Amino acid sequence: MSTFGSLFRVTTYGESHCASVGAIIDGCPPGLELSPQDIQVQLSRRRPGQSNLTTPRDEKDLVHVQSGIEQGVTLGTPIGLLVKNEDQRPKDYSETDLYPRPSHADYTYLEKYGVKASSGGGRSSARETIGRVAAGAIAEKYLKQVFGIEIVAFVSSVGKIHLPSNMVPPSLAAVDGDEDNDDVEDALTPEFRQLLATITREEVDKHPTRCPHLGTAERMTKRIIRAKEAMDSIGGTVTCVIRNVPSGLGEPVFDKFEAKLAQAMMSIPATKAFEVGSGFRGTEVPGSKHNDAFIVKDGKLGTSTNWSGGIQGGITNGEDIYFRIGFKSPATISQAQHTAQYDGTPGTLAARGRHDPCVVPRAVPIVEAMAAIVVMDQLLVQNARKTAAGLLPPITTLPPTMVMPSH
Amino acid sequence: MSTFGSLFRVTTYGESHCASVGAIIDGCPPGLELSPQDIQVQLSRRRPGQSNLTTPRDEKDLVHVQSGIEQGVTLGTPIGLLVKNEDQRPKDYSETDLYPRPSHADYTYLEKYGVKASSGGGRSSARETIGRVAAGAIAEKYLKQVFGIEIVAFVSSVGKIHLPSNMVPPSLAAVDGDEDNDDVEDALTPEFRQLLATITREEVDKHPTRCPHLGTAERMTKRIIRAKEAMDSIGGTVTCVIRNVPSGLGEPVFDKFEAKLAQAMMSIPATKAFEVGSGFRGTEVPGSKHNDAFIVKDGKLGTSTNWSGGIQGGITNGEDIYFRIGFKSPATISQAQHTAQYDGTPGTLAARGRHDPCVVPRAVPIVEAMAAIVVMDQLLVQNARKTAAGLLPPITTLPPTMVMPSH
Amino acid sequence: MSTFGSLFRVTTYGESHCASVGAIIDGCPPGLELSPQDIQVQLSRRRPGQSNLTTPRDEKDLVHVQSGIEQGVTLGTPIGLLVKNEDQRPKDYSETDLYPRPSHADYTYLEKYGVKASSGGGRSSARETIGRVAAGAIAEKYLKQVFGIEIVAFVSSVGKIHLPSNMVPPSLAAVDGDEDNDDVEDALTPEFRQLLATITREEVDKHPTRCPHLGTAERMTKRIIRAKEAMDSIGGTVTCVIRNVPSGLGEPVFDKFEAKLAQAMMSIPATKAFEVGSGFRGTEVPGSKHNDAFIVKDGKLGTSTNWSGGIQGGITNGEDIYFRIGFKSPATISQAQHTAQYDGTPGTLAARGRHDPCVVPRAVPIVEAMAAIVVMDQLLVQNARKTAAGLLPPITTLPPTMVMPSH
Amino acid sequence: MSTFGSLFRVTTYGESHCASVGAIIDGCPPGLELSPQDIQVQLSRRRPGQSNLTTPRDEKDLVHVQSGIEQGVTLGTPIGLLVKNEDQRPKDYSETDLYPRPSHADYTYLEKYGVKASSGGGRSSARETIGRVAAGAIAEKYLKQVFGIEIVAFVSSVGKIHLPSNMVPPSLAAVDGDEDNDDVEDALTPEFRQLLATITREEVDKHPTRCPHLGTAERMTKRIIRAKEAMDSIGGTVTCVIRNVPSGLGEPVFDKFEAKLAQAMMSIPATKAFEVGSGFRGTEVPGSKHNDAFIVKDGKLGTSTNWSGGIQGGITNGEDIYFRIGFKSPATISQAQHTAQYDGTPGTLAARGRHDPCVVPRAVPIVEAMAAIVVMDQLLVQNARKTAAGLLPPITTLPPTMVMPSH
Repeated sequence: MSTFGSLFRVTTYGESHCASVGAIIDGCPPGLELSPQDIQVQLSRRRPGQSNLTTPRDEKDLVHVQSGIEQGVTLGTPIGLLVKNEDQRPKDYSETDLYPRPSHADYTYLEKYGVKASSGGGRSSARETIGRVAAGAIAEKYLKQVFGIEIVAFVSSVGKIHLPSNMVPPSLAAVDGDEDNDDVEDALTPEFRQLLATITREEVDKHPTRCPHLGTAERMTKRIIRAKEAMDSIGGTVTCVIRNVPSGLGEPVFDKFEAKLAQAMMSIPATKAFEVGSGFRGTEVPGSKHNDAFIVKDGKLGTSTNWSGGIQGGITNGEDIYFRIGFKSPATISQAQHTAQYDGTPGTLAARGRHDPCVVPRAVPIVEAMAAIVVMDQLLVQNARKTAAGLLPPITTLPPTMVMPSH
Repeated sequence: MSTFGSLFRVTTYGESHCASVGAIIDGCPPGLELSPQDIQVQLSRRRPGQSNLTTPRDEKDLVHVQSGIEQGVTLGTPIGLLVKNEDQRPKDYSETDLYPRPSHADYTYLEKYGVKASSGGGRSSARETIGRVAAGAIAEKYLKQVFGIEIVAFVSSVGKIHLPSNMVPPSLAAVDGDEDNDDVEDALTPEFRQLLATITREEVDKHPTRCPHLGTAERMTKRIIRAKEAMDSIGGTVTCVIRNVPSGLGEPVFDKFEAKLAQAMMSIPATKAFEVGSGFRGTEVPGSKHNDAFIVKDGKLGTSTNWSGGIQGGITNGEDIYFRIGFKSPATISQAQHTAQYDGTPGTLAARGRHDPCVVPRAVPIVEAMAAIVVMDQLLVQNARKTAAGLLPPITTLPPTMVMPSH
Repeated sequence: MSTFGSLFRVTTYGESHCASVGAIIDGCPPGLELSPQDIQVQLSRRRPGQSNLTTPRDEKDLVHVQSGIEQGVTLGTPIGLLVKNEDQRPKDYSETDLYPRPSHADYTYLEKYGVKASSGGGRSSARETIGRVAAGAIAEKYLKQVFGIEIVAFVSSVGKIHLPSNMVPPSLAAVDGDEDNDDVEDALTPEFRQLLATITREEVDKHPTRCPHLGTAERMTKRIIRAKEAMDSIGGTVTCVIRNVPSGLGEPVFDKFEAKLAQAMMSIPATKAFEVGSGFRGTEVPGSKHNDAFIVKDGKLGTSTNWSGGIQGGITNGEDIYFRIGFKSPATISQAQHTAQYDGTPGTLAARGRHDPCVVPRAVPIVEAMAAIVVMDQLLVQNARKTAAGLLPPITTLPPTMVMPSH
Repeated sequence: MSTFGSLFRVTTYGESHCASVGAIIDGCPPGLELSPQDIQVQLSRRRPGQSNLTTPRDEKDLVHVQSGIEQGVTLGTPIGLLVKNEDQRPKDYSETDLYPRPSHADYTYLEKYGVKASSGGGRSSARETIGRVAAGAIAEKYLKQVFGIEIVAFVSSVGKIHLPSNMVPPSLAAVDGDEDNDDVEDALTPEFRQLLATITREEVDKHPTRCPHLGTAERMTKRIIRAKEAMDSIGGTVTCVIRNVPSGLGEPVFDKFEAKLAQAMMSIPATKAFEVGSGFRGTEVPGSKHNDAFIVKDGKLGTSTNWSGGIQGGITNGEDIYFRIGFKSPATISQAQHTAQYDGTPGTLAARGRHDPCVVPRAVPIVEAMAAIVVMDQLLVQNARKTAAGLLPPITTLPPTMVMPSH
């Protein structure tokens, strides 16, 4: 349904052409300094019309905070907020409405609800993500301030155009094709590890594609323009890193950190794939190469490699969390498509209206937002447990290997 | 935490070396004929010791139903069940216990809880999945009987050894490397579509690897044996198809069908990646090729291709649902590993004990179980909605394109 | 937190002096004809300033629907709505702010959150209930249209002034004080049963007290006026009946119908007590008198008496559901009170501002709303189960007493 | 359904005549010393056959812990436990099975599920509460050790026999019947306050009725014996106090402390009424008398009276929490009752089998258990919030009355 999270809980509402879209964010820690501008920054990164690579639909997407904040400080009560839909006229009845758009949600919404919004994507529209982005911005404000947590997503591929092989997780890096040869490169090349450790939103935003490698970004631009000119669309991938997450987050067995992260990411429109750490390609690497050996870092155990992507046994280990999401090519294209009407009549549909030829540049802040929400929620849950355990006397009756040294 | 599902709800308990592992399955429809044998079948497919490819730990894994069923019929009340741990002796204290196993959950469990089980994987052990498999078997019994739903998972790769390219989803199929060439093969080759449409568990079980292509299975066997002999391990992927799922399942926006499926799969131990339909590779295909055109099938709209993997806008469309999961190489290996002790002392760990060199053959029934639980839960939720809407009078005030024809 | 319900799910936001208060209602059945006026009716019954018995704070409380409805029909997607706070100026700093109001939430909110709204009740204000009332009105529209369910609450006492003894549940009726005498009157006098069976909102609203017995209402008015003039306050009780609820609603064991009803009612500000059916006084009646014998009504089993209040074993039995809620005297009074400041300094507080001397007349639509939400949510859950069970073949292997005749 | 709690989460299973009843307790803090005996103590207080006042069904009710504890210390993982049903033979088919027992759950279970257990109360049996009592005992162990929280319930009435008026909350104390007279006694007489402050389980258990006033206990015994001899039953009330609960627990607006407490209590079989603090009778007292003035206690704000029952605005204030629950007379009686069969045929039912003439003595540990579960769950949730807020820098921009002094 439209609520996500257990203690940091986001509930969203809104279709593409109703009065407004918005969210209620429940469980935000009280006493946090928070201004509308903290939220607006990410909404503006998400909004359409930022470049010639996105939909010409131009929405200012100004956030209106309704509750939960007084004199710039959160009260701990639910934060209600909304963004008005500038263009809320239901679309005129049109011949193209006789057709469910192929691979869009038109057909399945009607199958599910028996009724659907008259125009645009309705609830399946990307405008629904506004509430998520706002919620994520609030979570981030806290996470950054208290833990120095940094969440940065970037476009890692558009169509067949990928970041250079030394800037991608091993799932895309060249691995020897000889099935009897176990030699592999280190999971993370120095360049990729450097990228994960240092990439910032400012760098990501330098290019409209949000790809942090200029040469690749230029090729991606051409690819998107080509799709646009062909009245076609193209997909891509977004990679995201979360830095400085404390160890211990994630709730075995069903709410493991990567399980909730996967749900969060796969709930974003147009996603078809998710992988964390070494992902699919890591499955080809034998354990002896894939295992992350422990070493001491800053007086605490860390790992020398990070195939695990910062999560082991469903729980964060303090290393960088990185993951990749695949977004399909947008379903709405202006090109004529042979398909069938709702009543089964075969015919040709040429969709009208404004739409993105490629969603990944605008997906970047949405991915960051969902990541922030997951971290925040899991952090609160672990707070509950850790604080409770910390009030107990030290355990003296168990062998030392069963007990955390610092406990 | 240890509960999954809203209306069909599974809660599990159990570590590797406690008295028993088990589950409470709440929300099973009443009036279903259900015998312990219905559950045992899948538990036996999951249990260790089935071939020389798995851990020699030999557990009979007999299910003991405690409640919720009387005279072979479900009462609608919670079904409690358990499987005894045959070998429940906590392991003797050992020098290897000084080391958190690299890439295992030893370290993170201790970070999270401040205390951990003395031996084996504790709660992170694969024995935890017994409760899930039992729950899934119950869900399947219902789904099969009422809707003819069939869920079949199989091993699609071990290490670098994959099913032939005409038997895999497009994410692994060869796609032209020319970034300006949009020509692609059909998402699903006739052979792959045939495989999805017809594969059965009997066929899958013909070979101990649970790979349905004999030549590939033989190569996989050799690969696993090689890992075993090298005291090493190897990963792989499992592909799963769900046939005959009604359209309309999945709850936008956060509980979309693929989002809950992703959570369910990524909650299985050792998973690192999930993709549905065309997955990662589908992101490289332009919309005009990737969109699934509508056609009439059996008097109802269906799609001519199925890049979508049976889900559009987070809601099932009635086509086959297929997805792929990546399992990393098992972390526990007997080979010596240079790593550090809990206290940071560097050293060499050579793990002892019994463990699988490759988990994917035994993961097959676990994947099927989690898939069944997701379908069952989403089905019940959609039942609620659809039944409620069906009691309302027909909608007469909306344009016909907003209303389902049959409504 | 601020979300209630599993499938019909209400999330509210808003403090007394922020921009607006509102709610997101998720899970409303699609295809329901719904206008803002359907919601406004109950909001207007709840709003202040309706008579000289309530706070002079005058808010029009007009609902603004944001989403989920198009052309007067629900889409099945979340319904966002809000009511603007007309007077949203944070109160000027005042000496009385140094005092936590005795028995109000000032102190506990500060203890919980470490920060609190500057003025008024903040989130503990009765304005928070606006979102609930709106959600309840939506639920009611459906329940009335499809099942003819009627929910009517009324004021049954103000201070010591109660409805006549033949118009109250047995918990207040005279029972013989002789502890060895088991003779009791029928649980429901003919007058009370008639009242439950026929009372309407129109009758309830005939008098500003919302007490349906004119003589009593006049005495209540005098009592409230007396409290007002004394700068004091007075409590009371609200009784509510729900008619025509289908049998089978309620989810053992923790979500029994009366358990969720109790949570819902006790979540309303100022509530201190809840009883269903025969309630507290019923505990004094021996089982032989208290048991509701079965009889045939309209071709179905019903009960000849209704001490149970329409619920048995946590599940509705089709009889009228009736319950009573106790509301304490409002904490905010203008009379001087000897108490202490936040910092412990003893002193005298004379609260200023507008407040109700008695909340029960305005609580009536809030009670109805929460009742409607509980019925709607439980109905949807039971829909899920019943529809699922109904698709199974008839049970033939069990003795007839284990199986519903119509199954 | 059968799960209660958000972070401390209890899921139960079991019918009256299946193999076992039990529970999974998820979210217990790790590192707690816990033995089976800690749990057994309360199970033994709950079990039948303790005196001639309860059912002769004699069950040892020994707990078998399955998981989550190793070497006497909790691991933080789910604690599975079970109690075997000694007598699990399904009852022989009998003529009385043709009748749904009046006011029992026989009829409604069949209406809900379409099928029901063949014998006894099935899932509606009091044996279901075993899992709750075990879970409560675990929660209590933690609460007592860390916070010194004490939870003591006792029988406050049986039939018309109540504790003396100076030992009951004001809801039962004599209040002047003159509706224009606002003079009332203090909410809590010195004797009642003393009782709440000092009562122990040892004192409660001194008499089989679990009534702490000997003279009253003797009269209660006679009353229960009279019911038993008459093949009848009688109801009663249980009062419970929770001491030393920290301030700040309870989650507005729907999960207020008293709301979750009400749900918890009203989910216990046979409950019909709940009140907290001054309850129903408190509604008759004007605010000026009912408000609890603040005073300094141990350097912290407390209240001089406690009409609030330790909860204000849905949040605990640190004072004693006390509440009262009404249990109806048991529905199962051996006395002949004129009623109807499932098929509507009128007739006379004389139930056979073993059953309690009065449930309140055995309800005492169940009430305590549910209270402990609520406190534990709310404590963990507040831990999460408070720990998160505590990591933020002090708030300097708000007026002092908006910020907790110690913050």
